Amino acid sequence: MIEVGIVGGTGYTGAELLRLLSVHPGVRLKVLTSRAEAGKRADAWFPHLRGRVDLSFTAPDDDALAACQAVFFATPHATSMRLAPALIDRGVRVIDLSADYRIRDAAVFKRWYAHDHASPELLAEAVYGLPEVNREAIRGARLVAAAGCYPTATQLGFLPLIENGLIDTQTLIADCKSGVSGAGREAKVGSLFAECADTLMAYGVAGHRHLPEIEQGLTRASTGPVKLTFVPHLTPMIRGIHATLYGRLLNKDVDLQALFEARYRDEPFVDVLPAGAHPETRSVRGSNLCRIAVHRPQGADTVVLLSAIDNLVKGAAGQAVQCFNLMFGFDERAALDGVPLVP
Amino acid sequence: MIEVGIVGGTGYTGAELLRLLSVHPGVRLKVLTSRAEAGKRADAWFPHLRGRVDLSFTAPDDDALAACQAVFFATPHATSMRLAPALIDRGVRVIDLSADYRIRDAAVFKRWYAHDHASPELLAEAVYGLPEVNREAIRGARLVAAAGCYPTATQLGFLPLIENGLIDTQTLIADCKSGVSGAGREAKVGSLFAECADTLMAYGVAGHRHLPEIEQGLTRASTGPVKLTFVPHLTPMIRGIHATLYGRLLNKDVDLQALFEARYRDEPFVDVLPAGAHPETRSVRGSNLCRIAVHRPQGADTVVLLSAIDNLVKGAAGQAVQCFNLMFGFDERAALDGVPLVP
Amino acid sequence: MIEVGIVGGTGYTGAELLRLLSVHPGVRLKVLTSRAEAGKRADAWFPHLRGRVDLSFTAPDDDALAACQAVFFATPHATSMRLAPALIDRGVRVIDLSADYRIRDAAVFKRWYAHDHASPELLAEAVYGLPEVNREAIRGARLVAAAGCYPTATQLGFLPLIENGLIDTQTLIADCKSGVSGAGREAKVGSLFAECADTLMAYGVAGHRHLPEIEQGLTRASTGPVKLTFVPHLTPMIRGIHATLYGRLLNKDVDLQALFEARYRDEPFVDVLPAGAHPETRSVRGSNLCRIAVHRPQGADTVVLLSAIDNLVKGAAGQAVQCFNLMFGFDERAALDGVPLVP
Amino acid sequence: MIEVGIVGGTGYTGAELLRLLSVHPGVRLKVLTSRAEAGKRADAWFPHLRGRVDLSFTAPDDDALAACQAVFFATPHATSMRLAPALIDRGVRVIDLSADYRIRDAAVFKRWYAHDHASPELLAEAVYGLPEVNREAIRGARLVAAAGCYPTATQLGFLPLIENGLIDTQTLIADCKSGVSGAGREAKVGSLFAECADTLMAYGVAGHRHLPEIEQGLTRASTGPVKLTFVPHLTPMIRGIHATLYGRLLNKDVDLQALFEARYRDEPFVDVLPAGAHPETRSVRGSNLCRIAVHRPQGADTVVLLSAIDNLVKGAAGQAVQCFNLMFGFDERAALDGVPLVP
Repeated sequence: MIEVGIVGGTGYTGAELLRLLSVHPGVRLKVLTSRAEAGKRADAWFPHLRGRVDLSFTAPDDDALAACQAVFFATPHATSMRLAPALIDRGVRVIDLSADYRIRDAAVFKRWYAHDHASPELLAEAVYGLPEVNREAIRGARLVAAAGCYPTATQLGFLPLIENGLIDTQTLIADCKSGVSGAGREAKVGSLFAECADTLMAYGVAGHRHLPEIEQGLTRASTGPVKLTFVPHLTPMIRGIHATLYGRLLNKDVDLQALFEARYRDEPFVDVLPAGAHPETRSVRGSNLCRIAVHRPQGADTVVLLSAIDNLVKGAAGQAVQCFNLMFGFDERAALDGVPLVP
Repeated sequence: MIEVGIVGGTGYTGAELLRLLSVHPGVRLKVLTSRAEAGKRADAWFPHLRGRVDLSFTAPDDDALAACQAVFFATPHATSMRLAPALIDRGVRVIDLSADYRIRDAAVFKRWYAHDHASPELLAEAVYGLPEVNREAIRGARLVAAAGCYPTATQLGFLPLIENGLIDTQTLIADCKSGVSGAGREAKVGSLFAECADTLMAYGVAGHRHLPEIEQGLTRASTGPVKLTFVPHLTPMIRGIHATLYGRLLNKDVDLQALFEARYRDEPFVDVLPAGAHPETRSVRGSNLCRIAVHRPQGADTVVLLSAIDNLVKGAAGQAVQCFNLMFGFDERAALDGVPLVP
Repeated sequence: MIEVGIVGGTGYTGAELLRLLSVHPGVRLKVLTSRAEAGKRADAWFPHLRGRVDLSFTAPDDDALAACQAVFFATPHATSMRLAPALIDRGVRVIDLSADYRIRDAAVFKRWYAHDHASPELLAEAVYGLPEVNREAIRGARLVAAAGCYPTATQLGFLPLIENGLIDTQTLIADCKSGVSGAGREAKVGSLFAECADTLMAYGVAGHRHLPEIEQGLTRASTGPVKLTFVPHLTPMIRGIHATLYGRLLNKDVDLQALFEARYRDEPFVDVLPAGAHPETRSVRGSNLCRIAVHRPQGADTVVLLSAIDNLVKGAAGQAVQCFNLMFGFDERAALDGVPLVP
Repeated sequence: MIEVGIVGGTGYTGAELLRLLSVHPGVRLKVLTSRAEAGKRADAWFPHLRGRVDLSFTAPDDDALAACQAVFFATPHATSMRLAPALIDRGVRVIDLSADYRIRDAAVFKRWYAHDHASPELLAEAVYGLPEVNREAIRGARLVAAAGCYPTATQLGFLPLIENGLIDTQTLIADCKSGVSGAGREAKVGSLFAECADTLMAYGVAGHRHLPEIEQGLTRASTGPVKLTFVPHLTPMIRGIHATLYGRLLNKDVDLQALFEARYRDEPFVDVLPAGAHPETRSVRGSNLCRIAVHRPQGADTVVLLSAIDNLVKGAAGQAVQCFNLMFGFDERAALDGVPLVP
């Protein structure tokens, strides 16, 4: 049994980690930290976990965490960059669900996050936690930066085309729609039910922190820098991300459906739908799946990719557990075999 | 492995049966019938089951069903009463999710359903499928009529008080709130998103078919006939039933919290919340749990019980699987151990 | 033109006041205060009011408010009790949407609000702002305490029966369902979309501050003290309150439908539905209406009343404007004649 | 007073016409037809109109309709093309909310609708009902084909750029999101609450009937044929369309914000938001407004336009009433001055 700690377990990604890890056959949940809720039982904070999780929150304690073999950070931005280095030094393997270690270039990080990185020396070592790209590197990593929600849906959509040089990398468009849980469990007026229900809006069109993460990932798969127009939208769903991706084909003679099916044939969590299909976000609700459909409307040279994930699972906690499974030699599907919940 | 058939698998309870049974360690799904969708793959009809269910719908065929050891009916009213008898004669054990065999008295049945029962000879034998009341009878049953959604939430709430004679059985009130999936996957104007979202209404106040089912169940636990005022409400949720139950206490000196905890101590799927709590329907979403809280506002003699279930699980498919587990000697929790999905 | 001020215009009831008063033919909106947003244009805060409201928020200023003929308080609890007295002294007529002046008995107030009232000398003078009960008193009032949302739906339902002594006043039950906007526009985790969507729960069963307000109102209409069991529920709607009311009839020979129709025949905002109907909350969305249906299931002695309002209109801002219209001699319907928005 | 008839008043656009026309100072509603609901009161069918509409549905009757000065068609596709010609011959002016007369080219019509047009001789005369483009032609029209919902939001966004030749017309992308009421009030499984809530999907990517309508409208404003990639999405809202529009700028030195503000300065129902803003669909809920924001992320050459309307108002009934006001010399805002309902 791997002994596991979770730092910052009071938000939605923390709750999902608890849901998933509580049924993991090879995990013993040992530490669950929250400065604010220290002393409170996890199942008092999250009543849906009654009978499933028998832990209480504790104040963060380096020694307790260092005694774990793996620690997940489900914290807001700028926490893991301060706490992870010491744990890694003491031999703990870290899976970070926050954005702290996703950007490899400290200067880019500073431009988008408006402050210096607290542990830039780890940026080069941190492995970007998208198993469909980095499976082998993840297996051996000490520090995994689990890919973000929009970046996962967007990259899994574009990658087969970019890896094969089939698409103009200067005119990519990602029109993404997210459920409100993506904004976290913080008390913000903009996330209130009466603000978000029965309405829809774009946000961050001028620039969103997931843009450099996506561009970095796509550039790595390309022969040169990639330029993306990224427009996120807030939609009245609890969970789910739907990325609608647009690109100009450079080669119209390729069988795109076959290309996508081949690229993801062995991926346990990527499902390429039959030609003509449209994935619903609910078809992945609660699961670690990414479902993708490939379209070329009217046979023109604009390709339209539809990519759907559960932002809290494949976009956060499930991705982290998938990485954990790779790091510790478990079946990649361990704890991730739940059937999507529909309706 | 028990070979299992499902009659009428195209609705929500059919989808839930597939979701649950597809991960049941002792079940081989063999037959899935739908006259309308015969020939279509189940995972084309329910894309969320891609990779999990490898069956196609077939037209109902007595021999194919008779070759199963267990057959679930997830059909509209008035189907199983015609088809179940022949299967039972051929040794198949039947779990019926419809209302056909829930009412024991054929005259009461006729009054509420406005036609004769097609197989009244089975009414006396049919076991009412509420394990918390009928566990032993279910184990040996050839025909189980799984309890309905409102009746499950309502009975589990009132039973401890009625079994102990603590409540006036002539003035019971059940104010129940249901999600829209309770109306089924039929194309009806009243179930449209644009009709049901952001609004709430009572319905069937003059009389709802679950009323005699509940009164029958409560009467069985009582020393005399029970009289209930039952008001169901349609609410903008996908899943979930919340029963708010009111009764007049006959004895105010009982520790109700302790009574409920004792009554359900050994029940795997009934969770009595701590004093003062309020169950959310989402806290049981996707699970077979019923969570109950007991209140006595202002210490007066009106007791208020709050009871929450997932109408498609404990109110339908999960209850049926729980009964199936009892009938075939499986762990009662088999296939029913998923953690509720929150948020 | 009546010059009007609004204190605390940044919440939902403030927004509704602006929506309604901006089309009032006899009103000039002159002052709109908010300490936090002083200097900001109202239509930057509420973009839906672009082109309709040409005011900016200002810090509260006694002289500016005192120069108005009417001031509405759309503030949280415990504000108007401190600010209203000075305005009233200077001749301003005050309509208070908060709860500060609703409870007439300072001791009861203290028991439920856990602190002393800041201006108890006004409690006796304050007129409870429910025009269907207090129309004449409102016309002459200096200070109106507009009735709350749950209390409006509940009282309008029970009043015809209580005024006529037709119902047992010791066993009343109000099972009420509210949309989330009732919790205000404050940043609270419990009001987040991802907390409130697709779920339903009771709250405050042990005691809610609207209970003494309702009991006070019903007692005034009765020959003795009234005892109510009041259970509010939070439901995934933006707007709307549905009260499902239960009472034991003392006299079964009365034509209840005729009684309700007669009681509300001349009320511009109470609509008694035909026998057998069930009001939807959306049927009053955006309007000042209360729609009521009267049922006696199975002809038994329990009467079931269904009462639906828009919590932000008849339950708050619309009620306040209705009172204002009475106070200043306008047509009672002025600014309140919008058609409900369905779907 | 203009005497008005509505053909097909049982759906959502019919309900909106009733809501709007019932408060129109120059309209007398005279005929309301529905074959299926003939004899039923409109306010029994639409309870929210109780007290506002005193009409009953009648079977369609040519003479009764011909006695009106204006007839609105709120019918499914392929009805007005059969019924309108006779009315027009008898001097009735027709405003058609269906798509029957929107496509000018009968061959294009046949390609997308898969059957011949029943009155192709009227296609050339029919005026496309988008006042921001065709105001003068609408004033004099006998037959107006009110613009569709997606086409309105998309064209109002792109038009200023296309009219000024500022954008590459071969690579336009319209990523559109619609509420479910856009699918009408028909009983369809795909529109059920339990199918549409808490999920999101694209549909019709291979080709949607609004594509030729949009391309026709944009081509008319351009110097040559326009090519659009159009991807509609079904989202869990009741009302609202949000179009996110992408184009490649040909000239980067233009002040786009000023251009849009100038183009729509005199339009009563188009609101260009301040630079940097993001319109919410709810900010136009219930109103005839289109709110637009203009973005150029990272100063690159992709322009991003955000355009929000209420699909049932500016996308259907409100647009039709705006055209009606032009045709009959009313203030263009008559009956269309309601404030958007938020929250």
